[in-house]
Amino acid sequence: SGSLIAYSEANTNNGNRGRVAHADAVASKKKKVVVLGTGWAAMTFLKNLNNSIYEAEVVSPRNFFLFTPLLPSVTCGKVEARSIVEPIRNIIRKKNIDVSYREAECTKIDPANNKIYCHATANTNSKRREEFAIDYDYLIIAVGAQVNTFNTPGVEGNCHFLKEIDDAQKIRRNVIDAFEKASLPNLTEEERKKMLHFVVVGGGPTGVEFAAELHDFVNEDVVKLYPMVQNFVKITVLEATDHILNMFDKRITKFAEHKFGRDNIEVKLGSMVTKVTENEICTKAKGSDKTTSMPYGMVLWSTGIGPRPIVKDFMKQIGQGNRRALATDEWLRVEGVGNVYALGDCATINQRKVMEDITEIFKKADADNSGTLTLKEFQDISNDICERYPQMQLYLKSKPVRNIFDRPSQVKGKTSKESIELSIEEFKSALSEVDTQLKNLPATAQVANQQGAYLAKCFNRMEECEINPEGPTRIRGTGRHRFRPF
Amino acid sequence: SGSLIAYSEANTNNGNRGRVAHADAVASKKKKVVVLGTGWAAMTFLKNLNNSIYEAEVVSPRNFFLFTPLLPSVTCGKVEARSIVEPIRNIIRKKNIDVSYREAECTKIDPANNKIYCHATANTNSKRREEFAIDYDYLIIAVGAQVNTFNTPGVEGNCHFLKEIDDAQKIRRNVIDAFEKASLPNLTEEERKKMLHFVVVGGGPTGVEFAAELHDFVNEDVVKLYPMVQNFVKITVLEATDHILNMFDKRITKFAEHKFGRDNIEVKLGSMVTKVTENEICTKAKGSDKTTSMPYGMVLWSTGIGPRPIVKDFMKQIGQGNRRALATDEWLRVEGVGNVYALGDCATINQRKVMEDITEIFKKADADNSGTLTLKEFQDISNDICERYPQMQLYLKSKPVRNIFDRPSQVKGKTSKESIELSIEEFKSALSEVDTQLKNLPATAQVANQQGAYLAKCFNRMEECEINPEGPTRIRGTGRHRFRPF
Repeated sequence: SGSLIAYSEANTNNGNRGRVAHADAVASKKKKVVVLGTGWAAMTFLKNLNNSIYEAEVVSPRNFFLFTPLLPSVTCGKVEARSIVEPIRNIIRKKNIDVSYREAECTKIDPANNKIYCHATANTNSKRREEFAIDYDYLIIAVGAQVNTFNTPGVEGNCHFLKEIDDAQKIRRNVIDAFEKASLPNLTEEERKKMLHFVVVGGGPTGVEFAAELHDFVNEDVVKLYPMVQNFVKITVLEATDHILNMFDKRITKFAEHKFGRDNIEVKLGSMVTKVTENEICTKAKGSDKTTSMPYGMVLWSTGIGPRPIVKDFMKQIGQGNRRALATDEWLRVEGVGNVYALGDCATINQRKVMEDITEIFKKADADNSGTLTLKEFQDISNDICERYPQMQLYLKSKPVRNIFDRPSQVKGKTSKESIELSIEEFKSALSEVDTQLKNLPATAQVANQQGAYLAKCFNRMEECEINPEGPTRIRGTGRHRFRPF
Repeated sequence: SGSLIAYSEANTNNGNRGRVAHADAVASKKKKVVVLGTGWAAMTFLKNLNNSIYEAEVVSPRNFFLFTPLLPSVTCGKVEARSIVEPIRNIIRKKNIDVSYREAECTKIDPANNKIYCHATANTNSKRREEFAIDYDYLIIAVGAQVNTFNTPGVEGNCHFLKEIDDAQKIRRNVIDAFEKASLPNLTEEERKKMLHFVVVGGGPTGVEFAAELHDFVNEDVVKLYPMVQNFVKITVLEATDHILNMFDKRITKFAEHKFGRDNIEVKLGSMVTKVTENEICTKAKGSDKTTSMPYGMVLWSTGIGPRPIVKDFMKQIGQGNRRALATDEWLRVEGVGNVYALGDCATINQRKVMEDITEIFKKADADNSGTLTLKEFQDISNDICERYPQMQLYLKSKPVRNIFDRPSQVKGKTSKESIELSIEEFKSALSEVDTQLKNLPATAQVANQQGAYLAKCFNRMEECEINPEGPTRIRGTGRHRFRPF
């Protein structure tokens, strides 16, 4: 079902046929990079990978890239589905390295044998399930995430989601059908109101943007196309926490809540959905046991994401248990598996804590091995430390390096900061709060895009940086890291 | 499921809201015209209806008009689905008469009570089936036809059709999926060939155009996007009769067959499909009992059309039994039902035969009631006759009026044609072949379009022509017909 708009641009370019190598037929000594996914992370990686020591093989059930930030605009007809997709075959044709694509889903990763197992998803007449395996030198996991219903009863059967292009088109049909149906004769006002009650569960960016698109549609188009029912429309946003858009700056939240108030979009904060039936949606107010229910015409469920089955299975295999996403180090390598990388919504970077490495950091900084740290010694290595532990940089912004040497100086009554020397205990105590600056990256297109570009750059310069490493000094080892961390 | 692209143009026009009357609310003495359908016939009728003595109500499960001649071009991505639809609500907004629209299907026509019964088809959450009735003064049946499988086993489950926009998009997905699947590793050449064997059943315009679009796609796009499988593609057209496009001029047939030969599209003539299984299509050669079967990847079934259930039911009610389509007179009135009209693919004009009316024609022409017909008497009325019986015009083209008076003249040995007088028997014998010129109109967009425009013109001038009839002299009555026949 993924091929919807697969060749919308098939005529755009005069592709050089010779560039599209048939991977099966070409015997090559190149390093094989297998990429799982065709979303932001995978495609930005692929677009930027340009070192011909690699050949790439992309495996994804969806044969096009989707510009997800515009997905809410497709739900009400402002943007056409075709406008926000790019066929993977078009992307491949523009590459100067060998890339092949398989419309298939990876069902199993076997890191011990550098192999993945796939089954074809193309929806042709043949009911035979095509299975095949692919070997890799490097594996890039960028399969994204899936909708999370938190096992709320009735969500799966009664709610819309908004992750893929098909979802958006289904919503679009449903919105129009709601207006068509409400325009039929012989209905009570109550029935029309129910049909035109649009409920959004989850006040994140997806839910908020859908509510806004719907509001625009009602006010710009419905007034012209369905003037007789426009007054029955109601949009409700249900948010379980105290604010919508709570992952962003408070000013954004305030603006959005204020705007929705003016636009007659009802925002119910602290409102947990407990159940969705065919005709009603049931909610419980925060800190109360009272549940209420209201009739609805359509519900969009956009409360967050969870891991896909393939990722869950892989995490279990490598001992990452019940995490929300694959843990990687700061170089996007899956922890404990050398040649497997993960990025985008399916992964989170397990950021190294300063306090875990504090002894090694002190030792590394103490260049003269005196057991104490001078300001100069710390300054000499602080760039490396800040690069390796980004929270340190944020911490030092509010508490400049010299201040670390302030407190002890007063205690010891010395006059020149340069001559102060810190003991390991003093150093630890000065940095004890540093790891509170740690922040997880949000699961957004922007992050996935930046990670894809970062990783491709690393891959392109793999050999070069092996010889001339450009990363920070290794704190718990010798030499430097090959690359700067993401 | 009809609302696919329903508001693709919602922003195009600054609609005058006041024009969209809420039919329920407006108490009016206007004549109510109920139009069933949103295809060529219905929409051309609606677009041209502009006499404000009418109010119109359109009932159709599909809330958009579809430019069907470009449908085959959507199957391979040459034309985008959005480009060939026009939302009915947009059409309505541009009207200067009161028009309302109901997204519903008419399930029953009750001509005795001037009433139709409908049920809503909008696909909203509510599982309740909405039923309602509509009264009419005039009913316009323009619901089109449906695919005819001729009860061939396996067609329904294994073949594609190409009548609606959803069909075209499904084919498009399927074509691409076939290429994606054939590009997977670990397949035998035979398997790839099977997946890329496209079979078209029926060599009419739809089948021929699809085969041509597919051929273009293979030669322009597949060579770039799927170069590794291009040589496995095969297109086969199966036609039961002796020629493809046999409803058109022989030169068109010859050109198409020749072109397909050059393009490597195999055309199998005299090839009847007897069965379609999941993997094979079985055919029987004309005049032989031998059946053969071949593996296929995809089949398009485009062998012809049959009546929709609502039309079948109505035909049974009014005693039209097992016809292929609703019979109307030359003014598009359903025979035997005064205020019900039918046009487009759901109807055929039951053309009046000259020989059935020959006595009345002779009597009408014999102005002096002499029992014989002079050339002048015939010439005086021949325009009316040709208008009423179009086959007469074709007949006279090959056999001019004077010739009718030729044969008897020689028999009687007279010298001047003007003085010849024909008896009724001589007149009959001269015209005995005239009805062989009768031809049914093909079920095409062009005919439906012309009929819609014709009928709207009649409706617009209904009162005017009641007073000043513009049609031909009534042969079997007195006075003139109100309108020229279609």
